[in-house]
Amino acid sequence: MLFKNKSVKALAESYKRIWSIGQALGLMGWDLEVYMPENGANARANAESQLELLIQKYMLEMKKDLRMAKKEKSPNVYEQGFIRSTIRDIDYFTKIPPILIEKFSKATAKGHISWRHAREKSDFSKFKPDLELIVKLAREKAERLGYKKHPYNALLDLYEEEFTVAKADKMFGKMVPRLKKLTEKIYREEKVLRSHPLEKIAYKTEPMRQVNEKILKLFDMPNGRFRMDVSTHPFTMGINVNDVRITTRYEGTDFKRSVFSTIHEMGHAIYELNYDSRLEGTPLSDGASVGVHESQSRFWENIIGRSNAFAGLVTPLLKKELPFTRRYNKNDIYQYFNCVKPSLIRVDADEVTYNFHVYLRYEIEKKLINGDLEVSELPGYWNDMMEKLVGIRPKNDALGVLQDVHWSGGSFGYFPTYVVGNVIAGMTLQKMEKNMGSAALWGKVQKGQFNPIKTWLKDNIQKWGAVYTPNDLQMKVFGNSYNPDPFLSYLERKYLD
Amino acid sequence: MLFKNKSVKALAESYKRIWSIGQALGLMGWDLEVYMPENGANARANAESQLELLIQKYMLEMKKDLRMAKKEKSPNVYEQGFIRSTIRDIDYFTKIPPILIEKFSKATAKGHISWRHAREKSDFSKFKPDLELIVKLAREKAERLGYKKHPYNALLDLYEEEFTVAKADKMFGKMVPRLKKLTEKIYREEKVLRSHPLEKIAYKTEPMRQVNEKILKLFDMPNGRFRMDVSTHPFTMGINVNDVRITTRYEGTDFKRSVFSTIHEMGHAIYELNYDSRLEGTPLSDGASVGVHESQSRFWENIIGRSNAFAGLVTPLLKKELPFTRRYNKNDIYQYFNCVKPSLIRVDADEVTYNFHVYLRYEIEKKLINGDLEVSELPGYWNDMMEKLVGIRPKNDALGVLQDVHWSGGSFGYFPTYVVGNVIAGMTLQKMEKNMGSAALWGKVQKGQFNPIKTWLKDNIQKWGAVYTPNDLQMKVFGNSYNPDPFLSYLERKYLD
Repeated sequence: MLFKNKSVKALAESYKRIWSIGQALGLMGWDLEVYMPENGANARANAESQLELLIQKYMLEMKKDLRMAKKEKSPNVYEQGFIRSTIRDIDYFTKIPPILIEKFSKATAKGHISWRHAREKSDFSKFKPDLELIVKLAREKAERLGYKKHPYNALLDLYEEEFTVAKADKMFGKMVPRLKKLTEKIYREEKVLRSHPLEKIAYKTEPMRQVNEKILKLFDMPNGRFRMDVSTHPFTMGINVNDVRITTRYEGTDFKRSVFSTIHEMGHAIYELNYDSRLEGTPLSDGASVGVHESQSRFWENIIGRSNAFAGLVTPLLKKELPFTRRYNKNDIYQYFNCVKPSLIRVDADEVTYNFHVYLRYEIEKKLINGDLEVSELPGYWNDMMEKLVGIRPKNDALGVLQDVHWSGGSFGYFPTYVVGNVIAGMTLQKMEKNMGSAALWGKVQKGQFNPIKTWLKDNIQKWGAVYTPNDLQMKVFGNSYNPDPFLSYLERKYLD
Repeated sequence: MLFKNKSVKALAESYKRIWSIGQALGLMGWDLEVYMPENGANARANAESQLELLIQKYMLEMKKDLRMAKKEKSPNVYEQGFIRSTIRDIDYFTKIPPILIEKFSKATAKGHISWRHAREKSDFSKFKPDLELIVKLAREKAERLGYKKHPYNALLDLYEEEFTVAKADKMFGKMVPRLKKLTEKIYREEKVLRSHPLEKIAYKTEPMRQVNEKILKLFDMPNGRFRMDVSTHPFTMGINVNDVRITTRYEGTDFKRSVFSTIHEMGHAIYELNYDSRLEGTPLSDGASVGVHESQSRFWENIIGRSNAFAGLVTPLLKKELPFTRRYNKNDIYQYFNCVKPSLIRVDADEVTYNFHVYLRYEIEKKLINGDLEVSELPGYWNDMMEKLVGIRPKNDALGVLQDVHWSGGSFGYFPTYVVGNVIAGMTLQKMEKNMGSAALWGKVQKGQFNPIKTWLKDNIQKWGAVYTPNDLQMKVFGNSYNPDPFLSYLERKYLD
């Protein structure tokens, strides 16, 4: 038993109901994307909102347990984590009144529809009024949550605890100039391909599914605790520590998109499967933050999946299942996996230029929430900054400001976690290479021996779940936090050497 | 709005939470059988039992609302149904203490394991002690629930409201002698086949899945509200009125088993899809009883699916998808669908002898709960009665008393609903033929025009959900209840003419 103190045990007992409802909501969310008959959506949404209300109610009912637990004199790290997490949740539900939640969910439901419509027609004006309301409500949310220095801090904190504009500015401030230099050099030297003929080749779903299943086998994913299905937008859902589900996509061309969706989600799943099972039933059986979660998926997707060593491992498998790859060798496959070029769409961007796309969104969100930028100025600001950072200008808003779903859902503060993920993945690689030896590490990947890597990730990061804040976890593992240098060095080494 | 009175509206408002948790539990139950990674079972079971406790808690919290609603002077039929159903549920949770529920669920969890083991080894003694405890607890349950005349009545009522030993004795009393005569005549005349070569032919899953999908299309099942998956033991789960799911099975030989599993579950699904949508969110969006539900599945499976007209409809489809059927004509297919022979296993039994299997279990349950039969006497009693009714004697207990899962789960009172289903399906056919004209009805089936039949079922039975007791519903539709004559006449006509 992780909890020694009676008061924390009481907290855990009270939390059981919330955990159970959470498990149900997790399954409902998964099912909605994967198997639900579409007409069931309405009744499903009604049930979900009822269950969310119950979670809120039970969370607030834990106030008394929390008061007792806070009095404990020497809580262990698990108890500290549980108390911290409970304070955070209760604080949130206390500060955000049900009426604001309702307004927010109505505005985003409406906004989601108008956004889709606007994107189809490439007409920002169709989305503008709804987005204005959503931004207004997000500002109100920030005000109610409270913050120091910058209102956007309140929203960043929802996804990445204790992360701030100051930290993000520092991180991006180091990254953007070095990445600019890197891309200029890549384009100048012309050693890295901008595109590859395989991007245009069509594939059939069934053999591609075989490829993905075999890749999961390469990584030794545990069948009894894990499954893979299909959805338009791939995601991972941890129902419980022994039931983690990913999805992948089959668009029919450019098969690496399917491969890397699979490996990315697998990375999330490995994290979820590796939480200390004694944390099950508590809020600590979760990722340390969205950014840390993303670091685990990007470590596997980019650092392992797009490596030379992995290209060697996967090429025979591809040749077996996808006959059209047979004329290419492992070097071709490596190059196909690692093209770098300016692109307008974030989700299509490569490992290098991807970070510009996120930085752009970060700058916009920061200014929007602060009032330094108005919704009406968005398209122009977007296009200018895109041109400055990536070097190309969207021909229309569908290819620009309207491309992402996030703002229609009011998820301001989420985007930066994508780069936090890259940054922590870089820190992870550096530390792992230091611990295991770089040659030894990559030698293992080459042989398909992933267990030492998995064990390292589990022992240093994953087993801790949400026990530590993302910052404390980084300090514990790396001795510093949100440090982009290792990630930048990794990219420079990879694309210039 | 179906509810006019303020107090019943309040009841409905309180019920929303229960409905939402019920929807979640429905999905969890479905997922468990169909997609859940097996290691997730433990955490899943914990979450489910927490959610069930919440339902019990909220149900009991409705006592005050119920008290007010009961005072209403002129409730409409929907309000009457809601009040009746709420009384029933609260009564159950009031009379059955949590400690008994816990004992019961521990005993059945243990019993399920020992039953499986006993069946594998064909050794009743391995199951006997657990079954003795389960029977003891079932008797205690009956005592606590209360009953008039016979303790088994308390258990029958759980599945078939107001159904009693007296009614069941009367029903079976009419059925058994006439069915005995019928089978003797069938065997004597030798016009009906006992077995068919197609029973031995192996099939592949994918074309068989195509057959089932096409059969569902024949019946015009609505894709946006319905789906089909695979499970070992087929079942239907109505998540909500616009999200109903069935499963079917692919055992690899004797393809009619897959066909009739599909049509049987489809029959359940049609019922679930046809509840008046205004009942959604209340306990009335449910079947009138387990027996009435079973009548809907058996109507489609046996009366429609095993008819001559349907054989004509399905034969071309079979020939297209399953090449090994091409040497048979629609008459052969009809005969293959309708073999009659003595068999030891209930789930393999035909439409005629099936009823003996259920009657045997009914007699045993009645005597077990009453104390007229002890668990130790079960195997012998079973074998004697099997010989008397069906004419063959099980060589071992796996083929006899150990074949069904029900008793290990403590579901005493459930079995009779299978025959109630047959009986009400027969009454339904008779009434429908009277209303629509027999020739017209079967002419429509021949042409694949199922809408008039669906509409009849919806208007007379299905749209009412659980508004009426099963007895009242039958009185309203047929003018009498649990009358086996139409079913018996249907069988005699089908197998002797």
